[in-house]
Amino acid sequence: MSNQYLDPNLKVFSLNSNMSLAKEIAKFIGVELGKCSVTRFSDGEIQINIEESIRGCDVYVIQSTSQPVNENIMELLIMIDALKRASAKTINIVMPYYGYARQDRKARAREPITAKLVANLLETAGATRGICLDLHAPQIQGFFEIPTDHLMGVPILAEYFKKQQFNGDVVIVSPDHGGVTRARKLAERLKAPIAIIDKRRPRPNVAEVMNIVGNIEGKIAILIDDIIDTAGTITLAANALVENGAQEVYACCTHPVLSGPAIERIQNSKIKELVITNSIELPEEKNIDKIIHLSVAPLLGEAIIRVHEEQSVSTLFD
Amino acid sequence: MSNQYLDPNLKVFSLNSNMSLAKEIAKFIGVELGKCSVTRFSDGEIQINIEESIRGCDVYVIQSTSQPVNENIMELLIMIDALKRASAKTINIVMPYYGYARQDRKARAREPITAKLVANLLETAGATRGICLDLHAPQIQGFFEIPTDHLMGVPILAEYFKKQQFNGDVVIVSPDHGGVTRARKLAERLKAPIAIIDKRRPRPNVAEVMNIVGNIEGKIAILIDDIIDTAGTITLAANALVENGAQEVYACCTHPVLSGPAIERIQNSKIKELVITNSIELPEEKNIDKIIHLSVAPLLGEAIIRVHEEQSVSTLFD
Amino acid sequence: MSNQYLDPNLKVFSLNSNMSLAKEIAKFIGVELGKCSVTRFSDGEIQINIEESIRGCDVYVIQSTSQPVNENIMELLIMIDALKRASAKTINIVMPYYGYARQDRKARAREPITAKLVANLLETAGATRGICLDLHAPQIQGFFEIPTDHLMGVPILAEYFKKQQFNGDVVIVSPDHGGVTRARKLAERLKAPIAIIDKRRPRPNVAEVMNIVGNIEGKIAILIDDIIDTAGTITLAANALVENGAQEVYACCTHPVLSGPAIERIQNSKIKELVITNSIELPEEKNIDKIIHLSVAPLLGEAIIRVHEEQSVSTLFD
Amino acid sequence: MSNQYLDPNLKVFSLNSNMSLAKEIAKFIGVELGKCSVTRFSDGEIQINIEESIRGCDVYVIQSTSQPVNENIMELLIMIDALKRASAKTINIVMPYYGYARQDRKARAREPITAKLVANLLETAGATRGICLDLHAPQIQGFFEIPTDHLMGVPILAEYFKKQQFNGDVVIVSPDHGGVTRARKLAERLKAPIAIIDKRRPRPNVAEVMNIVGNIEGKIAILIDDIIDTAGTITLAANALVENGAQEVYACCTHPVLSGPAIERIQNSKIKELVITNSIELPEEKNIDKIIHLSVAPLLGEAIIRVHEEQSVSTLFD
Amino acid sequence: MSNQYLDPNLKVFSLNSNMSLAKEIAKFIGVELGKCSVTRFSDGEIQINIEESIRGCDVYVIQSTSQPVNENIMELLIMIDALKRASAKTINIVMPYYGYARQDRKARAREPITAKLVANLLETAGATRGICLDLHAPQIQGFFEIPTDHLMGVPILAEYFKKQQFNGDVVIVSPDHGGVTRARKLAERLKAPIAIIDKRRPRPNVAEVMNIVGNIEGKIAILIDDIIDTAGTITLAANALVENGAQEVYACCTHPVLSGPAIERIQNSKIKELVITNSIELPEEKNIDKIIHLSVAPLLGEAIIRVHEEQSVSTLFD
Amino acid sequence: MSNQYLDPNLKVFSLNSNMSLAKEIAKFIGVELGKCSVTRFSDGEIQINIEESIRGCDVYVIQSTSQPVNENIMELLIMIDALKRASAKTINIVMPYYGYARQDRKARAREPITAKLVANLLETAGATRGICLDLHAPQIQGFFEIPTDHLMGVPILAEYFKKQQFNGDVVIVSPDHGGVTRARKLAERLKAPIAIIDKRRPRPNVAEVMNIVGNIEGKIAILIDDIIDTAGTITLAANALVENGAQEVYACCTHPVLSGPAIERIQNSKIKELVITNSIELPEEKNIDKIIHLSVAPLLGEAIIRVHEEQSVSTLFD
Repeated sequence: MSNQYLDPNLKVFSLNSNMSLAKEIAKFIGVELGKCSVTRFSDGEIQINIEESIRGCDVYVIQSTSQPVNENIMELLIMIDALKRASAKTINIVMPYYGYARQDRKARAREPITAKLVANLLETAGATRGICLDLHAPQIQGFFEIPTDHLMGVPILAEYFKKQQFNGDVVIVSPDHGGVTRARKLAERLKAPIAIIDKRRPRPNVAEVMNIVGNIEGKIAILIDDIIDTAGTITLAANALVENGAQEVYACCTHPVLSGPAIERIQNSKIKELVITNSIELPEEKNIDKIIHLSVAPLLGEAIIRVHEEQSVSTLFD
Repeated sequence: MSNQYLDPNLKVFSLNSNMSLAKEIAKFIGVELGKCSVTRFSDGEIQINIEESIRGCDVYVIQSTSQPVNENIMELLIMIDALKRASAKTINIVMPYYGYARQDRKARAREPITAKLVANLLETAGATRGICLDLHAPQIQGFFEIPTDHLMGVPILAEYFKKQQFNGDVVIVSPDHGGVTRARKLAERLKAPIAIIDKRRPRPNVAEVMNIVGNIEGKIAILIDDIIDTAGTITLAANALVENGAQEVYACCTHPVLSGPAIERIQNSKIKELVITNSIELPEEKNIDKIIHLSVAPLLGEAIIRVHEEQSVSTLFD
Repeated sequence: MSNQYLDPNLKVFSLNSNMSLAKEIAKFIGVELGKCSVTRFSDGEIQINIEESIRGCDVYVIQSTSQPVNENIMELLIMIDALKRASAKTINIVMPYYGYARQDRKARAREPITAKLVANLLETAGATRGICLDLHAPQIQGFFEIPTDHLMGVPILAEYFKKQQFNGDVVIVSPDHGGVTRARKLAERLKAPIAIIDKRRPRPNVAEVMNIVGNIEGKIAILIDDIIDTAGTITLAANALVENGAQEVYACCTHPVLSGPAIERIQNSKIKELVITNSIELPEEKNIDKIIHLSVAPLLGEAIIRVHEEQSVSTLFD
Repeated sequence: MSNQYLDPNLKVFSLNSNMSLAKEIAKFIGVELGKCSVTRFSDGEIQINIEESIRGCDVYVIQSTSQPVNENIMELLIMIDALKRASAKTINIVMPYYGYARQDRKARAREPITAKLVANLLETAGATRGICLDLHAPQIQGFFEIPTDHLMGVPILAEYFKKQQFNGDVVIVSPDHGGVTRARKLAERLKAPIAIIDKRRPRPNVAEVMNIVGNIEGKIAILIDDIIDTAGTITLAANALVENGAQEVYACCTHPVLSGPAIERIQNSKIKELVITNSIELPEEKNIDKIIHLSVAPLLGEAIIRVHEEQSVSTLFD
Repeated sequence: MSNQYLDPNLKVFSLNSNMSLAKEIAKFIGVELGKCSVTRFSDGEIQINIEESIRGCDVYVIQSTSQPVNENIMELLIMIDALKRASAKTINIVMPYYGYARQDRKARAREPITAKLVANLLETAGATRGICLDLHAPQIQGFFEIPTDHLMGVPILAEYFKKQQFNGDVVIVSPDHGGVTRARKLAERLKAPIAIIDKRRPRPNVAEVMNIVGNIEGKIAILIDDIIDTAGTITLAANALVENGAQEVYACCTHPVLSGPAIERIQNSKIKELVITNSIELPEEKNIDKIIHLSVAPLLGEAIIRVHEEQSVSTLFD
Repeated sequence: MSNQYLDPNLKVFSLNSNMSLAKEIAKFIGVELGKCSVTRFSDGEIQINIEESIRGCDVYVIQSTSQPVNENIMELLIMIDALKRASAKTINIVMPYYGYARQDRKARAREPITAKLVANLLETAGATRGICLDLHAPQIQGFFEIPTDHLMGVPILAEYFKKQQFNGDVVIVSPDHGGVTRARKLAERLKAPIAIIDKRRPRPNVAEVMNIVGNIEGKIAILIDDIIDTAGTITLAANALVENGAQEVYACCTHPVLSGPAIERIQNSKIKELVITNSIELPEEKNIDKIIHLSVAPLLGEAIIRVHEEQSVSTLFD
C-alpha cells in the first residue's frame, strides 16, 4: 500500500454491520483491518476472536448499530469487553449510525430513554471515546461521559447538490416540524430559502392534510432528513410538493435505514433522486437506480487520524 | 389551613430563587414550608440551616436555577448534601426552571455540555428524583439517571389564549427554526396554522432579513418560545410580523429570563401582550403592564402529591 | 381466580422469551401478568409500552435470555430502563435461563467474559435484584453486586427419577469432566454411584475415544448436564454407554437450549428419554416424543412470593 | 522569553479568580497562559471558550475558589467539563485557596459537609489531580480520590520573619485553640515558644474574656492563622496581647479572605504588620499600608513543573 | 426481658471485637443479639454464618476496629457483604472505635490516607449508614458518602468528673498542641481553664523539654485525649505536671487502645486515676486498679433506637 | 547485575507475605526491589513507607494473600492507596496466591462471596491490573473489572513429572469431584488416564467410603489439587489409592496452604512425594523431606516483563 500509516499502535477493527465502509476507512488511513472473527454459536450467542495482540494499542472499532440493531449493539459491547480485558490502551467506538437515537426522551409515560441506556452500556463495557455522525439529536452527545466527536454529514450532501446544474431556483424543505434546523443548515450552504411540510388536521374528524409552509412553487425542492426509515413521511412530502407546484423533488439523508416498505415507496414516489451516505450498508436488493451514494469514509478516516495524532478535530465539524 | 395535607413525611423546602412560587405550591398541597435558613457568610459562602428533623422523610426542594444561576445551583447542591447526611429518605428536586439548559450540546469545538454537567452534579450530591418543567430540549431528561418527571407549560398557555376573544384568525409563530415543534404543540391546541421566522442572509455582504415562512397576513400572530432571555429574537420577530401585515402580535413563554435589555425591548416592540408563567420570579421593577402572569403552582403541586402518593403523573404530562 | 394474591404492589411482567412459563408463574402466585407490549419497529428497534402505573411497586420481570439471546437481553435492558424511569420501587429480574453463562472466564487470550459483562449491563440499566436458576457456574452469582437468589433444578429432576420404577441399578453419569459435581448432586438424591465420560486421545494422531471412568455395565445410566445445546456430547456419551454395556440410558438437563442438530441427534441416539424443564420455551417443532417436560413455575413462583414477603428463600435452595 | 518551557503538552489556563497570580506562575514556568475566554451571558450563565487545541495535553487550571466563591466553583467545574470533552490527557486543578474548607465536618445536626461536596463535584466533572495550598484541615486531602499534592505556606511566612531584625524575644501566638498546631510549626522554624488565646466565659452571665495561655509579656508576638476572614478573632487577639504586655504584635496568614469589616478592623487594631500571600487576589481598595505581600507563585510553579516531569514533589512539602 | 423492643425488623449483630459492649447495647435496646458465628478456618480465613433470616431488616452491626485491627476490619467487611447479599434493607455499622483514624492525611510524601481508604472499603462492601464515636478528627465524617452520626464521649467523661469532690481548682490539660480543642470542650463543661503541654527543643542539640503553656500550679490537672495508645505522651505529661507543681493529675480518654508498654507506663506514672470508656474492650490483664470504667452503651443504644425510629439524633450530639 | 532491566519506570515492590519469591522475581527481571518498609505500629495498625519516588511509574506489587490472610489483604490495600495518592501511573497487583478464593459463591443462605468482595476492595483502593496464578475457579477472573492475566501452574507441575522415570503406567487422580477438570489438564500433558475419588455414603447411617471411580490398580497415581489446605482430603485419597492397589502415590498442588494438621498428615500418609510451588512461602518448620519445591518466579517475572512491554502474555497461558 502506498500510503501506509506508520504508527503500529493505531488498530482499526470492524464488526459485522458495515464491513465495506470499514474497509474504505482502513484504506483511507493506510492500515489493514485488525484480524478478528465475530461469529455466532449454534444457539445464537456471539463468539469473538481477536486474532492479534492489541495490548497497549489505540483501538478503533467501527460498527453502525443499524439493523439488526440488537445484534449489532451486543457485538459492540462484547468486543469492547474483550478489548478491555486484553489491555487495549484506548477503546474508541466509531458509530457511523447510532441506533435507537430516536428514543432519546420520554415522549409518553413509562417510556425508556434507550438512546441514553445504550450510551451507559457502552461506557460500562469500557469504551473510552466515541466518534459519531449526525446524531438524531445533538444532545445525545451529552448522554456520554466519555469524549465524543460529532461529525456532520450535511457538508457532504451540500457538496453534491452544489455540483448539480439545477434549472431553476432551489428550496430546501423539511419534511416535518422537527427537522427545520437541519434544513436550515443545508439551505445556508446552498444559499436557498426553506419551506416546511406541516401535517395537520384542520378540524376534528377531518383527514390530515399536508400543509406547505413557505413558497415552493416552480422551484427545485430538496427534502432533507437525518434518517429515512420507512420513507412514509418523505414520500408523502415529495408528492405534496409536486402537487403544490414544485418543479422537481430531490431527497437526501445521512442515514438510509430504509426499512419495510421504504424502497417501494421511494420507487413509486415523485422523488427524482435520493441521495444517501454509506453510514448504513445498503443491501444489494435495495439499491434502486434513483439512489445516489456518497461516502463518509474520508470524513471518518480523517477523524480517526486526527484523534490518534491529537490534532484538533474541530475543523471537521463543519 | 382547611386542606391540610395529612402525611407528615412529605416535606417541602424552598431555597432562595423563587420563594413566592414555593409558598403557592406549599399552600396548594396543604403543608407549611419546611423551616430552614439559607444565608451567606461575610465572604459569600452559603450557610444552610435545616431547622427541623427530616430523618426518614420524603423531601421536595423547590429551586429554579435562574439568575443568579451559579448561586442558585450551589444552594441546591449544598442543600442536597445536607439532606443526604441528615438521612432524608428521598430527595426530590423540583426545578421549575432548569438553568444552563441551552448549553446542551457541543455546538463548537471545546465547548462544555453544562446542562449535562449540572445533572451529574445534582446526582453526585445525592438527589434521588427530579421534577422539571419545559426543559429547553426534552433530551435533557436523558441527562439524568434518576427518575425525572417532565411537565409541560404549553397547556397552561393554551388555556389562556383559548379564553381570549380574538377578532380574527390566529396563527402560531415560531421566532426561529429551532422552535417549530413547540409552536406546533400550541397550534394543535388552538386549531391554528403555524408560521416561522427564518432569519437569513440572501447573499454574502447583504444584511440578514426576517423572512417569514407561512401566511400571517391579517392574522392574530402568537409568538411562542420556551425561554425569553434578552428578547432580541422575539421582538424583532414581532416587529417583522406587523410589518408583513399581521393584525396583532402576542408573545408567550414558560420561562421569563428577561435579562439585560429585555424589558425595554418588549416595551418598545409591537408585542401587545407577553404571557409568562412564574417558573422564574419576576422582580417588581420588571413587571410592566404588557405582561400577563400565569401560575404553574397547581401543576407542580399536583405533581408533588402524585409522586408522593405513587400515583401516575402521566395525566399531567399533557 | 381463587388464590388471588392480595398485595397490589407485587407486579409480574413478562417479556417475549418465555411467555408460557411466565403465565404459569403468575397463576401460581395469583396475579395477572402486568400489561405491557414489547414489539419491534419496522427497523428492528424494540418498542416497550408499559400500560399500567408501576410507580412505587415491586416489579418482577421474567425473561430467559435464550435464543434469540441478543434480542432477549436488549428487551430486558430496555424494560429495566423504562421501569427505573417510571419509578418502580424495586426491579427484580427473574432469569430462568441466563444466556452467555458459558462465557464466564477467559479460556484463551483476548476473550471477553460475556457472562460478567451481561451482569454489569443489567446493573447499569437499574436492576435491583436477581433470581436465577442453575447458573452454569455458581460463581456467576458473584458477578452481581445486587442480591441474587440462585435456585436449583436438580431437586425437580431427582423427584422425577425417584418416581420411576427402574428395573436395575442406577448410575449417574457426567458427560464430561466439567460436570462431575452436578452428577454428584443428583447421585446423592438417588443414592447412586457416579461415572464420567472422559473423552481423550490415547496417542497423538489417534482418534479421540469415549473412555468411561467408573462402572456402568448392566446399569440404568442417567446422564445429567445443566445445558444441552447441540446435544453432541450427550448423544455421543449415551451411545458410548450403551456400547459399553449400559442397560438403558436416560438424559436430563435444566436448560434445553437444543440448537442446531440437537433434536435430530437426540432422536437418533440411544437416549431413551430426555427429561427437561421449561426454563427455556421449547418450540412446538422440537417437541419430540422422547422429551419429558417438568415445570419450574412453582419453584420460581414460590421464590418470588418469599422475596416479596421478606421470608427466607434458603429453604428453596435445595 | 528567556526561560521558555520546552514541552508544548504542558498547558496552564487561568480562570477569573486570580489572574495576576496565574500570570506570575506561567512566567515562572516559562509558558504563555492558555488562550480562553470565560465570560457571562446576559443572564449570568458562564460561557467558556477554549481557543486553542488541548487534545492530549496535560492541562493545569489555576483557580482560587475565593469570593465570589460560588461563581468561581462553577467556572472551575464547567472548565473541567469542557477540557474533558475536548480530550485533555490530564486535568490538574491548582487551587491556591480552597473555599468552603471550613465546612469540613458536621458541627451541628443537619449541616452539610460542603468541603467534601466540592471535592466530589470536582471529581465528577472530571478533574484528575489536585494541587492545594494550606488546606484549612489537612484531612481535606482525604476528601479526594484523585492524587492531591498539599503545599505549605508556613515556610514562606517563616522566611519573611526570619529576615526581620526583631528587638526582643519572639512568641508565636495562636488566636484560638483550633490553630495551635499551625502556631507550633511556625514556632519551630523561628525557634520560639508558643502561646494561645483562649476565649472563655469564667461564669454564666459574665462576659467572655480573652484569656492568654502562655507567656507573652515584653515579647514580639506573631499571631498566625491559615485564613483571616472578618478579622474579628485576630484583631481582638492582637489587642488583648498588647493589653497584657506584648511589646509588638505582628499577624500573618496564607489566605487573606478579608471580607466585610476586615480591613477596617485591621487598620484600627494594634497589629503592626499583617503578612499575607497572594493565594487570594487582594483588590486594590483593600491594600492598606500595614499589609505585606508574599508570593506563592514560585512554590506553585515549581510544583506544576515537578508534577509534569514526574519528579518528587515531597521536597516542596516543607 | 421487661423492656423488650417491639419492632422485629431491628436486628443487632455483634462481631468479635467488643462482645461485652454489644451485649450491653442489645440489653439497653431490648433485643437479643442476632444469631451468627464468626470463626476462622484453619488457614485463618474468616467464616461467617448468619443463622437467622435478615431479609428486609434494618441491621446494626457493632464492631470496634481495635486490635487486632486488620482482622476486625475484614470481619466487618465480610459481614456487610453477607448482609447485602442476604437482602438486608439497611446495613448500619456501629463503630465505637474507628481504627486507623490517625492516618487521616498525608503527613509525608507517599503516605496512604488509610482512614479514608477504610471508609471507601466499607461503602464498597455495602454499608448504608455509620454510627461513630469521637472520631480522631471530625473531618473523618466527611470521608463517608453515607449518612454518619458522630457521637461525643466528652459529656460522659465530664459527667464523671463533675461528680468528684475535688479539693482545689481544676485545670484541663491537653497533652499536646493537637488536642487543645478537645480540652476546651471538657473545660467548658467543668467551667475550668486550660493548659497545654508543648514539647519542644529550645536549641539544636539540646533535649526536648516538656514546656507547660498555662497555669497549673497547685491545681487538680485533668489530662484529656481521645485515644491513649502507648501512653508515652500522657504519662510524660502527667509527670511534667506534677514536677511543675500540679496538686494531682487525672487522665481520661474515650478510646483506651493501651498497646505495648501502656499499662506499665500508666502504673508507674504520676497519674492518679485513668478514666476510660468501653469503646474498646479492655482485656482482663490490663485492668489495673487506677482505671475507672464508664460505659458508652446507653449512648450508642439510644442512638440506634433513634435512627431506627427516624427521630432526631442531634440531641445526642452533645 | 548482568541482566539489568533498562526501563527505570518499571518498579517491583514486595509486601510481607512472600519476600523470597519477590526477590527471585526481581532478580529474574533484572531490577532491585523497590525500597519501602511495611511495619506495624504498637497497636497493630499497618505503617507503610515508600522510600523512593514512584510518580509516573508502572508499579508491580507482589503479595500472596496467604496466612495471615487478613493482614496480607490489608497490607495490599493500604499499599495500593499509598501508590495511588503518590501518582503511580499504573498499579499492577501480582498475587501468586489469591486468598478467600474458595468463598466464590453462596453455597448456603446468607453466605458472603468473599472472593468477589476482595476483588471489589482491590479495585476501590485503586489497582489497575492483576496478575494471578491458578485461581481456585477460573470465573474469579470475571470478578475483576480491571484486566487480569491468569497464569497456569499445571505446565510447571507437568514438566517435573515428565522428567521422572516412573516404573509403570501413570494415572492422574482428582481427590474429589470438583477437581476433575484440573486432573484432566495434567493428564493431557502426561498422556495418562484419569480417576476420581468419590467420597460417598452408600446408605443412611453408614460411614462414608472412599469410592474410586476409574482404574488405578498397579499404577503410579498422581493426585493433583490447586490448593492443599489441611491435607485431609488428599491424604485420605492417597491412602485409599494404596489400599485399592495403586503401586505408588504422588501428590502435587500449586498452592501449599498446609495449615493446621497438614504437615503431620502428609508425613504420616502414603504419599511418597508432595510437589508444590512457591506461590506461598513455606515456613522452615513445615519443610519436610517429602516436599519437592518448584519455582513460579520465572513464570511471574516473564509475565511482568511482557505486560510492561505490551507484548502478548497469551503464550504464557499454557
